[in-house]
Amino acid sequence: MKSLTSLQQLIERRIEEEALKIGVTAPVNLYQPIEYTLGMGGKRLRPVMVLMACDLFGGTIDDALNAALAVEIFHNFTLLHDDIMDQADMRRNRPSVHKKYNENVAILSGDAMSIMAYQYLLKTEGPAYRELVQLFSTTAIEVCEGQQYDMDFEEKLDVSIEDYLNMIRLKTAVLIGCSFKMGALIGQAAPEDADRIYRFGINLGLAFQLQDDLLDVFANQEKFGKKIGGDIVANKKTFLLLKTLELASPPQRAELLSWIGKTTFNPEEKIEAVRQLYTEVNVQELTEQTINSFYQKAMAELEAIQVEKTRKEELMLLAKTIMQREH
Amino acid sequence: MKSLTSLQQLIERRIEEEALKIGVTAPVNLYQPIEYTLGMGGKRLRPVMVLMACDLFGGTIDDALNAALAVEIFHNFTLLHDDIMDQADMRRNRPSVHKKYNENVAILSGDAMSIMAYQYLLKTEGPAYRELVQLFSTTAIEVCEGQQYDMDFEEKLDVSIEDYLNMIRLKTAVLIGCSFKMGALIGQAAPEDADRIYRFGINLGLAFQLQDDLLDVFANQEKFGKKIGGDIVANKKTFLLLKTLELASPPQRAELLSWIGKTTFNPEEKIEAVRQLYTEVNVQELTEQTINSFYQKAMAELEAIQVEKTRKEELMLLAKTIMQREH
Repeated sequence: MKSLTSLQQLIERRIEEEALKIGVTAPVNLYQPIEYTLGMGGKRLRPVMVLMACDLFGGTIDDALNAALAVEIFHNFTLLHDDIMDQADMRRNRPSVHKKYNENVAILSGDAMSIMAYQYLLKTEGPAYRELVQLFSTTAIEVCEGQQYDMDFEEKLDVSIEDYLNMIRLKTAVLIGCSFKMGALIGQAAPEDADRIYRFGINLGLAFQLQDDLLDVFANQEKFGKKIGGDIVANKKTFLLLKTLELASPPQRAELLSWIGKTTFNPEEKIEAVRQLYTEVNVQELTEQTINSFYQKAMAELEAIQVEKTRKEELMLLAKTIMQREH
Repeated sequence: MKSLTSLQQLIERRIEEEALKIGVTAPVNLYQPIEYTLGMGGKRLRPVMVLMACDLFGGTIDDALNAALAVEIFHNFTLLHDDIMDQADMRRNRPSVHKKYNENVAILSGDAMSIMAYQYLLKTEGPAYRELVQLFSTTAIEVCEGQQYDMDFEEKLDVSIEDYLNMIRLKTAVLIGCSFKMGALIGQAAPEDADRIYRFGINLGLAFQLQDDLLDVFANQEKFGKKIGGDIVANKKTFLLLKTLELASPPQRAELLSWIGKTTFNPEEKIEAVRQLYTEVNVQELTEQTINSFYQKAMAELEAIQVEKTRKEELMLLAKTIMQREH
């Protein structure tokens, strides 16, 4: 089995090579922003998932490289268009594409990336071709649905925990499940195992996103990388906010709603006050329990996969790496 | 052979059915704008091309319906995103999506349409599957390139006729060629015939776009439907403008450039003055000759297709309909 680190290095090199080629393709105003986007870095977790799953089932890693690139390009396309929609001016400490270039460039380069993702995927050989393309398309449309729900939730307060979990499943978890399953399909896994690793990815993705919500409020600022409390300031309907609304006493609820309703406020003060309410209803522990429950489900799926246990070690490491990124 | 009119009616009904289904899918804020877009009408020429080409080679029209829907959805996606980029507030006498809803909705619904186009295409059965998806992807990325060149040309004057023809080939002609070729592949045409009908579409598409440029300046206002002179007011680098810059005497060129450089002007006056310059260099006749030359190339490709002549009559009618739409 290839190690997580070696696969990360492998895919990083391939992305760099492709990005260089893409960046010099005409018309450069279309393709250079794509090189810029792909060069922004990140942990390349999704393409690594494709490669690891392929490796797990004894497939050849080279056969999965194009699918891995497809997933990474698609993921970066969604970030690019999300940044326009969220008016997010920075991404990984660099100006986002619509700021560095302009909004039209960001729209059109994103459109091209979405199609390029298919082009890379279509280079994949083998019997899984049709199923791969179908899975990828279903996932891609689900990611759009997730983004839409996320935007819808900004405008309303009556979001149930179930609605929220469905939203993060679509926006985040399905692409992780898809990445693993694509690798499994290329590695010619048995259909049940391909489904198991898909569900492994879904549950891991849910745990990951809830962890992200938690870290936004309770992380160690230095280790977290981005600003603490951003979700609170923006009234993001996270698991923590929704659960607190559910559990709060009437006065606690009133205080929380009053912070949500304020149009002018001191951000630090709001973060502190909301965090205090979160602490009062003990939502941190509750979130941790929920995260742990999804994580355990993920592990059970991994366990059930009909592959020798020692072959699963790098995937266990990947899961741990994803979940413990602040520590 | 099915008639052009009957195929238009057939596809219109299918689009309406699909649009209704799409419009009630959750999240509605994602899918309703797609129903709205598909309901805006238009002549549905591209999907009809898919069906006619399939019919020409003896294929079953039902087998080509999903590919036809894919092409129409993709085409409407490009219009939707182009309208954001061009800040075009109206489309077929109705508010464009970013005006009726908002820009975020228009971006995300467009993204979803681009993926849905693949989803419809992927429903197509048969041996041509892989080639269809490849052709569609290549075409889709070319359309993005065409749109980028079109935007690039807004900023510069040194655009050659060759550059311009390449731009309209990418932006307009390749999707027409692709529509015909997809139908041919589904109808199991011989590879040479599939390539011939592709080139038929390319040349027809070039003729069509040049005709569009010509009509913008010299059409009968009432019959044309949209406002005459829009390209002139916007300094669009059309075939007419580029050719006139090439042919003009120094004073004519200076006058044309002075109109292009003006930031405040009476639109009617500018249209009249530029049209006068166009007339002086006889660019209308030159454009008509170029259109005719592409049209004849298209006809030669159609002629060469190894199918009984009488089967080609509806395609001839389609070609004529496209070219004579103002008369």
